[in-house]
Amino acid sequence: MKCVALVFEDFETLDLFGPVELLAGIPAIDFSYQSLNGGLVRNRQGVELLTQPLELADPVDMLLLPGGRGTRTLVENEIFLTSLGQLAGQASFVLSVCTGSALLAKAGLLDGKEATSNKLAFDWVTSQSSAVNWKRQARWVRDGKYYTSSGVSAGMDMVLGFVQDRFGQELANQIARQAEYYWQDAPYRDDFA
Amino acid sequence: MKCVALVFEDFETLDLFGPVELLAGIPAIDFSYQSLNGGLVRNRQGVELLTQPLELADPVDMLLLPGGRGTRTLVENEIFLTSLGQLAGQASFVLSVCTGSALLAKAGLLDGKEATSNKLAFDWVTSQSSAVNWKRQARWVRDGKYYTSSGVSAGMDMVLGFVQDRFGQELANQIARQAEYYWQDAPYRDDFA
Repeated sequence: MKCVALVFEDFETLDLFGPVELLAGIPAIDFSYQSLNGGLVRNRQGVELLTQPLELADPVDMLLLPGGRGTRTLVENEIFLTSLGQLAGQASFVLSVCTGSALLAKAGLLDGKEATSNKLAFDWVTSQSSAVNWKRQARWVRDGKYYTSSGVSAGMDMVLGFVQDRFGQELANQIARQAEYYWQDAPYRDDFA
Repeated sequence: MKCVALVFEDFETLDLFGPVELLAGIPAIDFSYQSLNGGLVRNRQGVELLTQPLELADPVDMLLLPGGRGTRTLVENEIFLTSLGQLAGQASFVLSVCTGSALLAKAGLLDGKEATSNKLAFDWVTSQSSAVNWKRQARWVRDGKYYTSSGVSAGMDMVLGFVQDRFGQELANQIARQAEYYWQDAPYRDDFA
């Protein structure tokens, strides 16, 4: 199972690495960290992550898309949005965390679908597309192959929900237990809305 | 406030980046990612993080030490343990996550102190030193300037506890809220023991 994480300057640290930690419990999962041009990608927490250039020719099982400050400029980046559309179109599943859903929305990928996002940036995110059925009160939302989560730590609850949908509750619980993680497993319980 | 994260090959992803995400809410905190020799540090989740070589001459406010598979060989690495002892000795606070406490224990830094660790690796960790007062039932433990946490995700609850001790409950709650994080704020509630 191939998971591509699409990262960019000023991605939010936990948006990416929380899901990676828990998804790593899926047997034989393989992670690839990619960015538009490859190379070191930096963020405000001083993280410098080595990435590969986007491989648009390879269909993937999962596309993981974090949020963060960097999304504020990326919503205006046509080359990025076109590449995102191509990657997402080829992926069996697409999972975004926090303001990552602003990028999916702006690329038109969530048209006619239900989705959610970070609650502190909700007005900005939802302004990126009126064609999305935005859900304010949700820890995460699934619509077809698209999963979108609320802010930052919600991405961890979402990926465990994904594991449960795809591989069963036993594996999801086992992964949570191994990480000593208190899984908030109710997608529509959201105390931050 | 300078925070040095000491990383190594096969560190556990969330042990490092969960705490980093939440500590980033401390005003004017500055992160430095260091390893014994500097350069790219890799782990099993395919993360390749750029690090600087250890700066043993600079006292720091906080030393953050993740756990992970890499600790299994590091407990036999005298050069690493000596450097860790020097760094920790100079730091105002030392916070370890998961099996990171095995390294602190083996370096003799927890002698006579209370500490905890990952529950699935508890027997191995505690075998590193009999001079430590190991606490099995704890989400995290503070003893003086040393904070040690249980496995993986417990590091996030611990650093919020650190923020509360050092900067007050209001900032801890604010950071949790901004990350939409359900803080398990009771250090001695531990459902994974």
